[in-house]
Amino acid sequence: MAPSEKELLKKAGPILCDAVNDEKAGKIDRAMVRYKQGIELIAQAMRMMPIGSADREKIMTNFAIYVRKVAELEYLNKTAAEVDQYRISANSIGHSYYKIFTRCCDKKLRMVHVQDAYIVAHHQLLNFVRFCELIVPLSENLLVITLKTGVDAQKNENEFKELARSLEKRGVTLQVNYSGTLHDREIIFDNGWVVKSGRGLDYFKPAEGKYVLGICDMDQRPCHETTIDFLKRKN
Amino acid sequence: MAPSEKELLKKAGPILCDAVNDEKAGKIDRAMVRYKQGIELIAQAMRMMPIGSADREKIMTNFAIYVRKVAELEYLNKTAAEVDQYRISANSIGHSYYKIFTRCCDKKLRMVHVQDAYIVAHHQLLNFVRFCELIVPLSENLLVITLKTGVDAQKNENEFKELARSLEKRGVTLQVNYSGTLHDREIIFDNGWVVKSGRGLDYFKPAEGKYVLGICDMDQRPCHETTIDFLKRKN
Repeated sequence: MAPSEKELLKKAGPILCDAVNDEKAGKIDRAMVRYKQGIELIAQAMRMMPIGSADREKIMTNFAIYVRKVAELEYLNKTAAEVDQYRISANSIGHSYYKIFTRCCDKKLRMVHVQDAYIVAHHQLLNFVRFCELIVPLSENLLVITLKTGVDAQKNENEFKELARSLEKRGVTLQVNYSGTLHDREIIFDNGWVVKSGRGLDYFKPAEGKYVLGICDMDQRPCHETTIDFLKRKN
Repeated sequence: MAPSEKELLKKAGPILCDAVNDEKAGKIDRAMVRYKQGIELIAQAMRMMPIGSADREKIMTNFAIYVRKVAELEYLNKTAAEVDQYRISANSIGHSYYKIFTRCCDKKLRMVHVQDAYIVAHHQLLNFVRFCELIVPLSENLLVITLKTGVDAQKNENEFKELARSLEKRGVTLQVNYSGTLHDREIIFDNGWVVKSGRGLDYFKPAEGKYVLGICDMDQRPCHETTIDFLKRKN
């Protein structure tokens, strides 16, 4: 018989305690493994609880703390080897997110951490939605997407909530937090991939009209010049 | 050496004359073959001429007459065998145009004739743009898309012109005409496929928000119940 949500939560408790102790003792790698184990148990439990229920919301608060903790550790802990550079020349086409991010998605992927100060304008929000639309179906065990973005993006809080509700229905938790001191644009996939790029998700030129080829299919939209670095972490 | 545009046009003239005579004599099949040969020669010539030039516009006028003629004959001449039914149940997902129309696109495809009275609302226009976005890259020899739609769609004339300019850059001519007496929704591909469906291109439910999964990726958008019939013409 599959464990109940209570059993899952009970199991998560001591693992997360150990993680906190490991982190305090400076054993970061071991802390990360345990945080992730705990998060996964809580996420499994949350999937069994009705969306919006009081119990679930309460658990969500704690869950959020651990998720943010892991995201911070991921950003700090970046020993990585460069694997590949993907160069996009000005006005070229054929560079949809599908082309870029498919390689980063697999069954092992549990958490994705997006750091981008400029998810501010409407088209940048839509870029982020498109990114989620791509990775969710390609990553069947995905549990969490975190977004760390600039304080200007706080005006989009309702939009992020709408997206979070949509992701919740697919079993994925979105967590957004704001920072006034972001610099790099990067995306960390917890299966080992790190994608860095100067323009982040925002490397498409505006469409030349409202009813033109490339308005929906980003493979047909001309791009800005940019380079995307793919790093693979050493495990 | 490849023939010049003048040579191509000179070659097209007598073929189209023969086509007209064949049609008058009731030899419809032969007329169709010849009309298509003539249209292809003119389209090749047009591709060599600067977009927007006076000479090209002049040729375009004649071209339009023959294209419309072929579209009308295609609608009349529909001996077809049913190949397949694609049933979409209410609220199901995974039914993007890619899933439906990929099988209809190939190197043989030269002309596509869309008949749909309701390319009227903004989302219906966007559906039509998405349809074009899909078939153009999948059909490298595509020359012409015709749309026969209702008189209500005349308010979208500027939008159709914008789309036509966009398609022109890809070597594809869009021709729209309006009719007050349309009934069936169907799409004729001149490589033999005919796709009929009660809802035409408009079988997606509205997205549940502006920033939700399924807003851009139509594979994730819930659908209305509908059946799509695939017919293959006997040649």
